[in-house]
Amino acid sequence: MKFYQNEFKLPPFKRGFHLITSQVLQELPHLQNVNSGMLQVFIKHTSASLTINENADPSVRADFESHMNIMVPENAPYYIHTYEGSDDMPAHIKSSLMGTSVQIPITNGKLNLGIWQGIYLCEHRDYASGRNLVISAFGI
Amino acid sequence: MKFYQNEFKLPPFKRGFHLITSQVLQELPHLQNVNSGMLQVFIKHTSASLTINENADPSVRADFESHMNIMVPENAPYYIHTYEGSDDMPAHIKSSLMGTSVQIPITNGKLNLGIWQGIYLCEHRDYASGRNLVISAFGI
Amino acid sequence: MKFYQNEFKLPPFKRGFHLITSQVLQELPHLQNVNSGMLQVFIKHTSASLTINENADPSVRADFESHMNIMVPENAPYYIHTYEGSDDMPAHIKSSLMGTSVQIPITNGKLNLGIWQGIYLCEHRDYASGRNLVISAFGI
Repeated sequence: MKFYQNEFKLPPFKRGFHLITSQVLQELPHLQNVNSGMLQVFIKHTSASLTINENADPSVRADFESHMNIMVPENAPYYIHTYEGSDDMPAHIKSSLMGTSVQIPITNGKLNLGIWQGIYLCEHRDYASGRNLVISAFGI
Repeated sequence: MKFYQNEFKLPPFKRGFHLITSQVLQELPHLQNVNSGMLQVFIKHTSASLTINENADPSVRADFESHMNIMVPENAPYYIHTYEGSDDMPAHIKSSLMGTSVQIPITNGKLNLGIWQGIYLCEHRDYASGRNLVISAFGI
Repeated sequence: MKFYQNEFKLPPFKRGFHLITSQVLQELPHLQNVNSGMLQVFIKHTSASLTINENADPSVRADFESHMNIMVPENAPYYIHTYEGSDDMPAHIKSSLMGTSVQIPITNGKLNLGIWQGIYLCEHRDYASGRNLVISAFGI
């Protein structure tokens, strides 16, 4: 079994949905040594998240942000966790809806993504610092 | 370490939630060689998704479709990604809410699912073609 | 490759979101034998789920419950799967939104979680029994 792991910090991104596929691949070149396997990207935070979606048109990422802000609004009257700012509690909920990790098959030393798929960093806070990711690749 | 992987195309399904556990198992018979391990099913698309839920009563799948259509509506006034049809942008969002993969433990050569659990294909487009899946099973 | 797996039952929890990180770690001490690897926790049910979120302030977990009850309401007029109680169909939907498993990197024999991250059991039913979990840890 081959198992490679690396931890690194993304630079700060503004609130919204951002393509990070190329940054992820750059941080784990050992991926190419895996013939059949799996890549995991994990985010070590609870107010940002990771997902896989459309990698071409930026309007998709803009609509994600608009919709998630409606579906998980700020200042909902039932929030009691409010002392970290109006963007904090919605950020936690959005994070669990999107998820803390993505798992992608590796085939012949490459990510076996669909042609339209990319990895998104979902930044749910207004003013976040860089985010810490752990990348693991394993297989044979 | 054992690592088996297979890629295949599901036939087209109509918009909605569909049980595909038996199709998945058919495509990776090597699963039975894994004593303790993990199965991943990954969908290579951004407008369909995978989840695990109730495998018995079709009314559960019907209610999933009804609810997701309310929670992520078509023609929301804030969508700007509209040129691929009114079902396209909601399909992207639903896909990230449900997820692009499921990971299921393997125990004694079988999926270790709960008695009521099955794998759903969530088809979010009105008129989709078949969907490409990658199945990976690994362990000892 | 090392692969450890254990199945156990959590005691009943009341409806809501609950931290279970310490219970999970207790059930798989072999985790410390894995230098670089991955932990998966899987729930064998369709009306409860698992997620990773903030491990400190209980008000975050309370707000999760409040928001999910608004976002996936009971007694929605379009539900047809109603014969198992008004909390049943929302429980299925919430379960797929949160997810059936979490995957967490292992580094130097420990879970490589962020400082604020913990594992939540999301109990979506009013009167549930204990829930069965499968924990798998693997790596080198």
